[in-house]
Amino acid sequence: MRWVYDFSEGSRDMRELLGGKGANVAEMTRVLGAERVPAGFTITTEACVAYMRDGRAPDGMDEQVRKALHRLQEHAGRTLGDPSDPLLVSVRSGARESMPGMLDTVLNLGLNDRSVEGLADRTGNERFAWDSYRRFVQMFGNVVRDVEGERFEDEIKRVKRERGVQLDTDLDVDALRELTRSFQGFYDFPQDPAAQLEQAIRAVFDSWTGDRAVTYRRINRIPDDWGTAVNVQQMVFGNKGDTSGSGVAFSRDEVTGAPEPSGDFLANAQGEDVVSGVRNTRDIAELRDWQPEIHEQLTGILRTLEAHYKDMQDCEFTVEEGRLYMLQTRSAKRPAQAAVRFAVDAVGEGLLAREEAIATIDAEKLDALLHPTFDPDAAYTILAQGVAASPGAAKGAVVFTASEAVEAGERGEGVILVRPFTEADDVAGFHAAKGILTSEGGKASHAALVARGMGVPAVTGASDVEIDLATGEARVGDTVLHAGDLIAIDGTTGTLTVDDVPLVEPEVSEHFETVLAWCDELRRLGVRANADTPDDALRAREFGAEGIGLCRTEHMFLGERQQLMADVILADDEEGRRAALAKLRPLQQEDFAGLFEAMEGLPVTIRLLDPPLHEFLPHRSDVERAVERARVECSEDLVTLEHTLERVRALEEVNPMLGMRGVRLGIVYPEIYEMQVIAIARAAKAVSPAPHLEIMIPLVGYERELELMRGLVERVAHDEGLERGRDYSVGTMIELPRACFIADHIATQADFFSFGTNDLTQTALGFSRDDIEGKILSRYIDTHILDRSPFETIDTPGVGQMLRMGAWLGRQGRADLKLGICGEHGGDPDSIDFFHHSGLDYVSCSPFRVPIARVAAAQAAIADGPAI
Amino acid sequence: MRWVYDFSEGSRDMRELLGGKGANVAEMTRVLGAERVPAGFTITTEACVAYMRDGRAPDGMDEQVRKALHRLQEHAGRTLGDPSDPLLVSVRSGARESMPGMLDTVLNLGLNDRSVEGLADRTGNERFAWDSYRRFVQMFGNVVRDVEGERFEDEIKRVKRERGVQLDTDLDVDALRELTRSFQGFYDFPQDPAAQLEQAIRAVFDSWTGDRAVTYRRINRIPDDWGTAVNVQQMVFGNKGDTSGSGVAFSRDEVTGAPEPSGDFLANAQGEDVVSGVRNTRDIAELRDWQPEIHEQLTGILRTLEAHYKDMQDCEFTVEEGRLYMLQTRSAKRPAQAAVRFAVDAVGEGLLAREEAIATIDAEKLDALLHPTFDPDAAYTILAQGVAASPGAAKGAVVFTASEAVEAGERGEGVILVRPFTEADDVAGFHAAKGILTSEGGKASHAALVARGMGVPAVTGASDVEIDLATGEARVGDTVLHAGDLIAIDGTTGTLTVDDVPLVEPEVSEHFETVLAWCDELRRLGVRANADTPDDALRAREFGAEGIGLCRTEHMFLGERQQLMADVILADDEEGRRAALAKLRPLQQEDFAGLFEAMEGLPVTIRLLDPPLHEFLPHRSDVERAVERARVECSEDLVTLEHTLERVRALEEVNPMLGMRGVRLGIVYPEIYEMQVIAIARAAKAVSPAPHLEIMIPLVGYERELELMRGLVERVAHDEGLERGRDYSVGTMIELPRACFIADHIATQADFFSFGTNDLTQTALGFSRDDIEGKILSRYIDTHILDRSPFETIDTPGVGQMLRMGAWLGRQGRADLKLGICGEHGGDPDSIDFFHHSGLDYVSCSPFRVPIARVAAAQAAIADGPAI
Repeated sequence: MRWVYDFSEGSRDMRELLGGKGANVAEMTRVLGAERVPAGFTITTEACVAYMRDGRAPDGMDEQVRKALHRLQEHAGRTLGDPSDPLLVSVRSGARESMPGMLDTVLNLGLNDRSVEGLADRTGNERFAWDSYRRFVQMFGNVVRDVEGERFEDEIKRVKRERGVQLDTDLDVDALRELTRSFQGFYDFPQDPAAQLEQAIRAVFDSWTGDRAVTYRRINRIPDDWGTAVNVQQMVFGNKGDTSGSGVAFSRDEVTGAPEPSGDFLANAQGEDVVSGVRNTRDIAELRDWQPEIHEQLTGILRTLEAHYKDMQDCEFTVEEGRLYMLQTRSAKRPAQAAVRFAVDAVGEGLLAREEAIATIDAEKLDALLHPTFDPDAAYTILAQGVAASPGAAKGAVVFTASEAVEAGERGEGVILVRPFTEADDVAGFHAAKGILTSEGGKASHAALVARGMGVPAVTGASDVEIDLATGEARVGDTVLHAGDLIAIDGTTGTLTVDDVPLVEPEVSEHFETVLAWCDELRRLGVRANADTPDDALRAREFGAEGIGLCRTEHMFLGERQQLMADVILADDEEGRRAALAKLRPLQQEDFAGLFEAMEGLPVTIRLLDPPLHEFLPHRSDVERAVERARVECSEDLVTLEHTLERVRALEEVNPMLGMRGVRLGIVYPEIYEMQVIAIARAAKAVSPAPHLEIMIPLVGYERELELMRGLVERVAHDEGLERGRDYSVGTMIELPRACFIADHIATQADFFSFGTNDLTQTALGFSRDDIEGKILSRYIDTHILDRSPFETIDTPGVGQMLRMGAWLGRQGRADLKLGICGEHGGDPDSIDFFHHSGLDYVSCSPFRVPIARVAAAQAAIADGPAI
Repeated sequence: MRWVYDFSEGSRDMRELLGGKGANVAEMTRVLGAERVPAGFTITTEACVAYMRDGRAPDGMDEQVRKALHRLQEHAGRTLGDPSDPLLVSVRSGARESMPGMLDTVLNLGLNDRSVEGLADRTGNERFAWDSYRRFVQMFGNVVRDVEGERFEDEIKRVKRERGVQLDTDLDVDALRELTRSFQGFYDFPQDPAAQLEQAIRAVFDSWTGDRAVTYRRINRIPDDWGTAVNVQQMVFGNKGDTSGSGVAFSRDEVTGAPEPSGDFLANAQGEDVVSGVRNTRDIAELRDWQPEIHEQLTGILRTLEAHYKDMQDCEFTVEEGRLYMLQTRSAKRPAQAAVRFAVDAVGEGLLAREEAIATIDAEKLDALLHPTFDPDAAYTILAQGVAASPGAAKGAVVFTASEAVEAGERGEGVILVRPFTEADDVAGFHAAKGILTSEGGKASHAALVARGMGVPAVTGASDVEIDLATGEARVGDTVLHAGDLIAIDGTTGTLTVDDVPLVEPEVSEHFETVLAWCDELRRLGVRANADTPDDALRAREFGAEGIGLCRTEHMFLGERQQLMADVILADDEEGRRAALAKLRPLQQEDFAGLFEAMEGLPVTIRLLDPPLHEFLPHRSDVERAVERARVECSEDLVTLEHTLERVRALEEVNPMLGMRGVRLGIVYPEIYEMQVIAIARAAKAVSPAPHLEIMIPLVGYERELELMRGLVERVAHDEGLERGRDYSVGTMIELPRACFIADHIATQADFFSFGTNDLTQTALGFSRDDIEGKILSRYIDTHILDRSPFETIDTPGVGQMLRMGAWLGRQGRADLKLGICGEHGGDPDSIDFFHHSGLDYVSCSPFRVPIARVAAAQAAIADGPAI
């Protein structure tokens, strides 16, 4: 069994065996040549796994380490522990995925009472040698021998006190000698470098199963059985004087993506000093003034690495006495704007093909480019933290009711709607408010869903905010907020503050436009938007939507129209309902006409009424109170109110999600759907160019449901002069598991399917979105049942397979069936990848997610290889 | 194209082509010989379909009819319209399925002004001839020519008045002549018999699309495109004098199944007279005294037909001048007790093999043998009609609350619990009451489900009963019921009465026992019972259950224990919950011990806690009122009550069916499941023989959920000295669509699956059982979307296919996985057939359905052919 690889033997493809660090250092050695990268070797993750399993190093490992060390010493021309010119090495962990700070590291290994003198001689810097030795004895004791860190710190304090000095750097050689001796007294310090190495390697292995690492892996869902590799590397020193130094460098500007290298360095310093922030670092551009040839070398190396990795790089380097060493490189993490800029520039420079460039972008992060943000330079105090429910930042005066929000909106004032939670009634307030803050609910709460759909920033579940609607106060600890008080929220981070933070407005940069245009050429999945109003529709088109994939007509029954809808529901019979519906019809027709105008002939999928009727009625407890009041006051309204109460009670449902809604409304109250079809038809005829109309029946589970409703639509539309096929098509939402199983039959009645993955997730998983978020979801993530909410990213083994079954069977039933998806998942990059590979024709998502969907759809197509 | 078949050419296998009547008459002709069955021919359903499609008789049909008529005349030796000895025929409809009274019939066809005289001559009965002619002209006018029936009746009344007679039978030949003439004046009566026949045949075809028939088909779900056949048959007359007569005969007693023929006859009468009840009929046994040779012939024919059809027969016969004609035979409809008796006797007589005998039983009807019934001879007035929710009859005093029911029960009084609807709180009342009556809900309401499970008769959804709990009154029209008033309900028919109807207690007859014993030998599906108490368990065993397939432990938290459970839920932290659970544990242990004792070592599947916690808390509105009261009274309880209210609110769910329940409880509050496992383990150890324990985790959708809970069970059971495999097994309910899709993965964690088809139906169809029943279900049946509730019989295309997918994948994951089903469907014969053919190992149903399940399982196995 091979347990050890020299850096010269590995490559970046060996990440699983050599860990991330080991694989990257090896790759860099291959690319830049052995003289640029301090030599060393890697002990494999497999050795660690064997060590964990057997409780001892596997047979042959120690022998292989010995041989590798021998080769390293030959290469370096120095020997560990050599009293005249000792080799020093670092022993570092390196797991398959980075676990920063969680695993152990030992530096300066190889020093002992004799070699420290050799180091002093060779460097001509006795203090450096003794400080290195002191650090090593301390680190070894702490990391390898479990001596408490405090004991070392206390000892340092004692010595400083005795010598009357303030800083560690003020300690002279004598003091450092004294400290080193004391430290050696804390444990049995091994003078033999071979023993040091053996113990250090085992300590790194052991750190994999330490509490810190286990907790980290649990949170980050890294499997326990991966193990860590151990990297043993010759040490170089950036603190050997004025021609030495250390730094970090990005191959491009890490904030803007501009094509100049960026980063920081410090002369006469080690890497830790650069990152620790103890000293003020210098900009990487100043390298030119300091050591021009180093600057030139580094610039060249960054270019080489970028070309090799075909991605922006983030490197660590050390200059030891005028010689540049590269210690580490990896793909640079970058904000969305830098990612977009890099992609465009890289194509322009010929570094990457368009497909490669697009693949470097994290589509999810693009959200940040589409919403205002807190000024990154502004300082502010976080008052409370909630769930980042809808991205973007907003600022305004507190209001506690939707109607206040509407009034303030009409006065042109910016407000934040603050509620314990929100309901359908509050939606008018969403339009009027700059942002939403709730103390309850999570990412899938009503507030979050509606806010995301509208692109309104929202923070939900800020449980530290106690909202008392009765007194009109919101308390956070000692802070009390009243209506009119200024607050600011950041829905991208879930932050609440009372500071007047400046906001930065987003701009869709030229680079972003370029990327989106490329994506449109590459993707094969259509991208539509879920939009219910002309404003939504216009925004959707601005963001590049190719149509409306879901217009939820129920949103047209809210606000001032809610009373009209309540009249429909409270009517005693069909005649009464028809009379009430007749009043709604022209309003709805107007809504549709506005939408169609905005879409200028593009496809518009309209879903007929879906939600349970009681959503349009007042709350039972409100009506009960009104009845009580009317009774006491002997009001004339009592009879009407009692009737309302009776209907409200009669319409109550135990599980409204599974009750009288969707197509069931159309079957039981066909007059409602008839009114909607008339309104749609008349609006379509009044607008030019006529929309490409798609009428959609929700919640179908039986072929015959759709047969009946298609008949209704055809009959009514025919009376209005519209013919199916020529003027419109009829399709259905597939959002029940049963529908997926009989999709071939349903398809015989449908021109198109649109998968409603929100409801399909609820039914397939038995998870009510409203009820599952809080306690259950977080517990499920903690216990590794879920890694994220199935309402964010599609549950592929269950819901995803149902969707595929439905898609396949649907096309069995009708070969030219059009297939789309209009759940929240339509804007999620991972889900979009799945939909692409499931053969759907398009996704539909909230307008603000359209650009993300365009990029994600292109990435899915790229992963697929070229279209045939 | 062949449009016409002589009776001698057809057979019972040609039902689709010849209709039920045509096929049976043809079969009887083959079996009994042409001399026993009046000759004739059948015009096919295909001819009717062609007629409906083209609006005219298909080419060749009239010619074929002419030829068939010619053959009939040759055979009869008479001719239609012959003035000396005319042939008369009947023209009757005959659809594939019987549609009694819905389609048209014309009798005595062939009479005209001349042939009536021939008939008078030949029969020597002028009055008979003219009465036949009068009837024919009337019937032809009404049926074929659409003359209003009232015009004929008015004319008869006029003639009777003029002649001063009371009864039709008092009209003499002269009067009948006058009437016939008048009738002929109402329309253009065709004297030509060929024209009569042609018009009559078309009239029968037309009647298929008449309003009555269309409505009937809609209700009975008979396809419109089947069409009806037309049977033209030589008429024979039972009213030709004292050696003539008509009757109906069953091959065995149609009530008891005893092996003697039963039935009624009338001398000198036509068949209509027997069934109309105008004259008092004579028992079939008296045939012997009247015409012994006819009695002997008929007895022999009944035996022949029974042997031929291998089933009990229901025949019509006519004796014309001492000669016996058989007009019709069909399998006799029979009540359960006759069905059982026939099955046993038929085997004893060598008529049927056991398998054949069992196949003759309608398993669903057996329910009647297991519950009390209203005395069939008793007269009573129906006060209101509701849904037949749980079979059996009951009588008792009205109570309006569960606690009154319990108190009355303790005093030994029989009561009927009357509620608008019931909830978990009311279950104690179910035990104490003789029956349940609700004004709301249907067959799948809480009241219906619980009542059926317990075998308590229940009528639900009796919407005419207005229950005012506040005043303690139930009104039905003018009748007002108070607590203590006697009522009787029949849950088999949905009837409510205030009459003191005598009840008849059921007895499981020896014959039934014999049938059940045979079924047990034949079936391959195990039959278990859903049982939560020792009483349930004992009853289940009496009815032949081979184990408990579902013990719902939540029922152990009701009644007096509900407060203890509330303490668990209201506890502030895990410690508090554990303390409260510790009080519940010994009680639960006792419950389990009782159950295990009753089952004497048979398998017992225990489902850990499943329902949402709020079901154990008081209603929010009750707590709100209590808080209000405490506030006004400055009560010390205010703080506690406010805390309770807060918890009640926090636990409220929008869709409890899809919320915090099932395994989610076990994941979030493992201490509850731990307590239950300890109680189970200790009870199991205390009882001898130890039960075959199966611990079941509900609502699993993710493999890891079961992995975690199996770990919990194993750990706790191990601490109690029990080992999985040896002492118990661990499995899961499969009741979510997702679970079916990943059943192979779940199976790696499970010893068994039990399909929870109730919840699987709710999630797969998006139908909340609580919400779907009333309006939606009936509308869905009316509009042919559903033919019955998917909660009664499994929805095979959706839920059924999911179950099969789950079963198949489950066995992929673990070859020896045990598979059962424990939803309501486990007691439904059609569903049992499906489960048998899906490869399940057992079904589990309510104790009262166990005998039905045993029979249905045997029937499924029989349909399968012999086991290999």
